[in-house]
Amino acid sequence: MYTPVQLFSKYCITNNILEQIRCVSQLFFPQFSSDKYKVKRHDFSTVRTTDIDYFKSILGKDRILTDDQDVAPYNIDWIKNCRGNSQLVLKPSCTEEVSKILSYCNEKRLAVCPQGGNTGVVGGSVPVFDEIILNLSLMDKITSFDDLSGALVCEAGCILENLDKFAREHNMIMPLDLGAKGTCHIGGNVSTNAGGLRLLRYGNLHGSVLGIEAVKADGSVINCLKSLRKDNTGYHLKHLFIGSEGTLGVVTKVAIHCPVMPKAVTLGYFGVENFENILYLYSNAKSSLGEILSAFEMADCNSISHTVNNLKLQNPLAEYPFYVILETHGSDEIHDQEKLTRYLSTQMKNGLIVDGIVTAEPSKMQSIWTIRENIAAAGLVGTYLYAYDVSLPQKHYYEIIPKLRERLNSKVKMVCGFGHIGDGNIHINIIVPEFSEEVYSLIEPFIFEEVSKLNGSISAEHGVGFRKPQYLHYSKDPSALQLMRDIKQLMDPNGILNPYKVLP
Amino acid sequence: MYTPVQLFSKYCITNNILEQIRCVSQLFFPQFSSDKYKVKRHDFSTVRTTDIDYFKSILGKDRILTDDQDVAPYNIDWIKNCRGNSQLVLKPSCTEEVSKILSYCNEKRLAVCPQGGNTGVVGGSVPVFDEIILNLSLMDKITSFDDLSGALVCEAGCILENLDKFAREHNMIMPLDLGAKGTCHIGGNVSTNAGGLRLLRYGNLHGSVLGIEAVKADGSVINCLKSLRKDNTGYHLKHLFIGSEGTLGVVTKVAIHCPVMPKAVTLGYFGVENFENILYLYSNAKSSLGEILSAFEMADCNSISHTVNNLKLQNPLAEYPFYVILETHGSDEIHDQEKLTRYLSTQMKNGLIVDGIVTAEPSKMQSIWTIRENIAAAGLVGTYLYAYDVSLPQKHYYEIIPKLRERLNSKVKMVCGFGHIGDGNIHINIIVPEFSEEVYSLIEPFIFEEVSKLNGSISAEHGVGFRKPQYLHYSKDPSALQLMRDIKQLMDPNGILNPYKVLP
Repeated sequence: MYTPVQLFSKYCITNNILEQIRCVSQLFFPQFSSDKYKVKRHDFSTVRTTDIDYFKSILGKDRILTDDQDVAPYNIDWIKNCRGNSQLVLKPSCTEEVSKILSYCNEKRLAVCPQGGNTGVVGGSVPVFDEIILNLSLMDKITSFDDLSGALVCEAGCILENLDKFAREHNMIMPLDLGAKGTCHIGGNVSTNAGGLRLLRYGNLHGSVLGIEAVKADGSVINCLKSLRKDNTGYHLKHLFIGSEGTLGVVTKVAIHCPVMPKAVTLGYFGVENFENILYLYSNAKSSLGEILSAFEMADCNSISHTVNNLKLQNPLAEYPFYVILETHGSDEIHDQEKLTRYLSTQMKNGLIVDGIVTAEPSKMQSIWTIRENIAAAGLVGTYLYAYDVSLPQKHYYEIIPKLRERLNSKVKMVCGFGHIGDGNIHINIIVPEFSEEVYSLIEPFIFEEVSKLNGSISAEHGVGFRKPQYLHYSKDPSALQLMRDIKQLMDPNGILNPYKVLP
Repeated sequence: MYTPVQLFSKYCITNNILEQIRCVSQLFFPQFSSDKYKVKRHDFSTVRTTDIDYFKSILGKDRILTDDQDVAPYNIDWIKNCRGNSQLVLKPSCTEEVSKILSYCNEKRLAVCPQGGNTGVVGGSVPVFDEIILNLSLMDKITSFDDLSGALVCEAGCILENLDKFAREHNMIMPLDLGAKGTCHIGGNVSTNAGGLRLLRYGNLHGSVLGIEAVKADGSVINCLKSLRKDNTGYHLKHLFIGSEGTLGVVTKVAIHCPVMPKAVTLGYFGVENFENILYLYSNAKSSLGEILSAFEMADCNSISHTVNNLKLQNPLAEYPFYVILETHGSDEIHDQEKLTRYLSTQMKNGLIVDGIVTAEPSKMQSIWTIRENIAAAGLVGTYLYAYDVSLPQKHYYEIIPKLRERLNSKVKMVCGFGHIGDGNIHINIIVPEFSEEVYSLIEPFIFEEVSKLNGSISAEHGVGFRKPQYLHYSKDPSALQLMRDIKQLMDPNGILNPYKVLP
């Protein structure tokens, strides 16, 4: 038996750290979600041989997994937080197959868990009990690309990084980028309204998704796959599927607007004395760097030091209480460097930046991003991670961290705060040797109560999934919750789509 | 009796041409929409004295209009296309009053037409029969503004231009700008998903609206007024109210993200030989000007010459088949001018730009924008205007104009094409001496059929309103239309909100 750290080294065969950790984490079988979180199964049917025969008639036998060992990895989320007990994975390869499967499941009252790259961190992409896993990984074709408008149309199972590579071949980029890009699917991104590193610059998916094709619980296909930038023809239905985490329909195709690929990219990585200074730096960056600012990230000392130590990475700066990563995307390298130099010299002169490096060299930029993108993953190597993701008004952004440290004290190994300053989105990693009921009850609902007091959101970008429905009232008022229930009832009256998720 | 042109001169007391034309157009009483477009009244109640007494108990007598002459302007849209026959205008001053009014109307089956600045061009903001007009102009307060994040929260009746002035005092701007900015309300902008001149740069309202408060037909208040950049807590309900044109609820408050005010603004105005060259110019501008490009507009010769002649404006360029207006928003004037100069010299050298001026002087920029923003209005002075607004893939953008000219020939005075190249959004003005059934039947449904063949949208930014529901099938497939009907039934089961609009 290997220890997790040994396993991690043993499996270090790819360069993608997240992918390595995913592999390793699937070798451990965490407790079943239903036991761990004490949930009762809803009154759905269970899968019978006749059902499997029907699915075989649609998919053939190769695109159905029923063997325990084959199904196991699809039941577990990568942060080892949730584990379902599904006995069946279906892999459709086109919208028509998704439609037939859902129509059948709806008729037979069989629950379904739609699954993309399974990189979610709120248990939304794995079953809770024996829901049938509808995995979209085979729907990975790019349908069309318009060089002039930047409209890309593709199937939901396309991996984000692959789409970005494709777009770059046409001098465009995908409008979103996240740590999980090498694994996550665009369908999952859209279904969870993923945010990521450059929302500050390229906006959210409600703004950049041009069209969606989705299949409702009854199998009917809603075709809103227009690839136009403007389309005001009645209700903007696509937004019902953006961020509803597969509970209203399964996204099967996406049309998305790709911005122009920047000709010049520069990265700054700075040491900062205190959080207040980060806010000044951000405010000044917005005003001085304006249109070229593409990311403004922060991480506290815990986040960076734990990541570099645990994943054996190199921190190019000494230890500072806080770090800022600032990126520019522009169309003229000289102009961008002039702007950045002016910004830097001002901020170093006034003491807001204590130390720092600026680079436009791809490998150096990548090594800094690697640290930032793997902070979450670093908490998983040899330890258990309570991961949170909340939005707060920027002036209150970091207040939650010292409060949690004081409350949890020596009961946890470490509390880390990092995230997207520009979006008011902080990620909170609480690292412990292993899952503990006591720590869990000290964190929840305390953390959500604190966020609610400050008019924040209990989920900034990760969604609600299985882990947060009971806390939704901290962020949504009763009339909005009622409208959510009404819409769910309208679109999925038998509740077969991703049950136990999103809705309280 | 004055002629329209005389009236126009007589009423030229403000600098806002659109406002002048609105004043004048309200002196003419077009045909009732119900007669002109042959619609049958639905089975709603009619307003009685007891109803008016109830409304007086909520609003007092000063915020209720019942006198025919007082009510008249609220019944007519500014392009003189639609005219309702309402006998009652209500002017609530807070959400609670809106809630009480709707709750009462819902119970009594009284139909309601929500109205903002009444600048729409598809008849969505005026009643068709005797619907009660719920005018939000008194709800015009700014609630809060966050200097750091740029989140502005305000009531729905705020005039867009006022909000923009307010934002500019804080070094920010509103993320949308349209010709009607001096009159239109932010609530109307949101309800119709208004696009405008700079969508290319600042994105659409689905991306920039942070939160909404809306009142449903039954009077329940849906509070999704978060002013956070990221909030993934369940269904993204605010999008139901963006672009549903008041048929699912009345927007009462809006939280919106304001981008940083550009430190440098430059405008280019160019003469171009043919439409194909405009596409090259656009493609090159995207790539060379990149992040500073804030608008890319086109207008054909008809559009410009009719506007400058009819409104007695000055065209700073000679006559060319096509014109382009290109604007940059940047944070460094010298950098922007360098980029623009490089772009210009390349495009003049290769002959794509035949003639042009570039200016950063506010008054000169304004005089060019004045021409562009008043093309629509120019068609209203002394003539009748069939106004269309469609989206098309950029390569087919202009094809519809010669087709219409050929089809309508001498039966019309002029066919003009102009719009937002970057968004694939073309506006089509067909100018005739007065409304003619024959011309009307030659244009519709022909124009929508043509748009549909090219996978366009029959409404890019103006919405569906009263004028397009019967043509919605050209842009929306049957399953999407059914889902629209289901949602309407769910949220407004008695159909009191803006009836005869949006839904076929």
